[in-house]
Amino acid sequence: MQAPARTIKLVVEYDGSALSGWQRQANAPTVQAHLEDALARLCNGPTPVTGASRTDAGVHARGQVAAFTTDRAIPVDNIRRGLNSILPPAIAVVDAAEVDPGFHPRFSATGKHYRYLVLARADRSPRWATRAWHRPPRPAPLDHAAMTAAAAALLGEHDFAAFRAAGCTAKTTVRHLDAVTLGAVPDEPDLLAFDVRGNAFLRNMVRILVGTLVDVGEGRFTPAQVAEILASGDRTRGGQTAPAHGLELVRVFYDGVRKGPARGGASNL
Amino acid sequence: MQAPARTIKLVVEYDGSALSGWQRQANAPTVQAHLEDALARLCNGPTPVTGASRTDAGVHARGQVAAFTTDRAIPVDNIRRGLNSILPPAIAVVDAAEVDPGFHPRFSATGKHYRYLVLARADRSPRWATRAWHRPPRPAPLDHAAMTAAAAALLGEHDFAAFRAAGCTAKTTVRHLDAVTLGAVPDEPDLLAFDVRGNAFLRNMVRILVGTLVDVGEGRFTPAQVAEILASGDRTRGGQTAPAHGLELVRVFYDGVRKGPARGGASNL
Repeated sequence: MQAPARTIKLVVEYDGSALSGWQRQANAPTVQAHLEDALARLCNGPTPVTGASRTDAGVHARGQVAAFTTDRAIPVDNIRRGLNSILPPAIAVVDAAEVDPGFHPRFSATGKHYRYLVLARADRSPRWATRAWHRPPRPAPLDHAAMTAAAAALLGEHDFAAFRAAGCTAKTTVRHLDAVTLGAVPDEPDLLAFDVRGNAFLRNMVRILVGTLVDVGEGRFTPAQVAEILASGDRTRGGQTAPAHGLELVRVFYDGVRKGPARGGASNL
Repeated sequence: MQAPARTIKLVVEYDGSALSGWQRQANAPTVQAHLEDALARLCNGPTPVTGASRTDAGVHARGQVAAFTTDRAIPVDNIRRGLNSILPPAIAVVDAAEVDPGFHPRFSATGKHYRYLVLARADRSPRWATRAWHRPPRPAPLDHAAMTAAAAALLGEHDFAAFRAAGCTAKTTVRHLDAVTLGAVPDEPDLLAFDVRGNAFLRNMVRILVGTLVDVGEGRFTPAQVAEILASGDRTRGGQTAPAHGLELVRVFYDGVRKGPARGGASNL
């Protein structure tokens, strides 16, 4: 008799600096490929893994969610520890749990929280080189009030067609943004954190959103123009796409919960 | 007529992960060597650099202080920008200022602030792999109360001979510790920060101090035994040396000031 299939949910942390993103590709180090290769060893056979967010090359995560099925009776703690002994230093599993067979990391998700870091000072920072987008104040510092006003126009349910990458294949472009906050990072006076939470995101949506807000902060758009860009549904009218390395997937929400603490420990400006 | 020599003070930030420490060595990438090589280009000739702290390989800094003299009339902002265009991504100059010719980064220093990060959870963390010492809770979590009690025994002026590396050549081993605090790191529930401030430090003193406190936290020493170790002056009785990569030089104090905010933004536990 065959053992019943179990569905295992993983919470995965990674430093995306030297990774080619989430999705498996030929001849590139991706998170999905590393997880599938490690699980193939642990479970003695091919074990496809699905993920909640197809993060781009260079994007980091402290709370990516992945899932796989197996008929092997390995305790979840042993799965977690076993994977961490096989995975490279850039990737770790921080939680493993058996879940309902209907669970799907992406389709079951009811919300996601991303954080984007901007380094707002004249000089580059070795400590943040791979984790924050460097925007020197040229000539003036970022206009926080203007960025906050522009962010407010994006909250709620909208058609975000103007905030998605050209290759995005989503069937509908309507999404609900719960929060877009600008905050200070404790002990790091030169960092600015954009915390973005919503029900789901289009391809590159957070990066285009942050890039457009930085365009506002640097005076290239007014907050009113951001509302117009949103209403136009036209990507060519929008702002720049912020680079991947400033972005981190903080958490994926399930069971309708996505109203957790907006900023973790970071305080609002 | 020769131009008068100017003394320039630099504040230097670095990610020590791929560096062989501060001090110039043959065939190794060190901070001093990178600075001297960059200054040789900028100032058109050999330009020796002195530093406040001879940090070990793997140790990071956000506020190392260095100095050099030059008779070239380059404005300090151009020195800072010029160095940052030459230096590798792991090193940056965050401040440059002309100072009194008698200034010496180490001998003029009246205090230093180091921070040591410990990752206290079961699983390793890709995001902190090169910045925090991983101590899984085996079997119990670190005993914060015991570590705080042990730290208190080290405050003030003592002979720290029991807390220096074998190769330390300091003439006197008496130092004054102003603060040893254990604190939480905002937004990072698994990190523990040891903030250590004092007038000066022996070789590996912070790393031995943290290693010994972690020995207390894990039950290998009592706080009373730490006081005995200190009194003994005997390094062989002390605890382990915490690894270099968890350590960061936060700030060097001059002009007698070393009583700044103990923890920056990090809150006490």
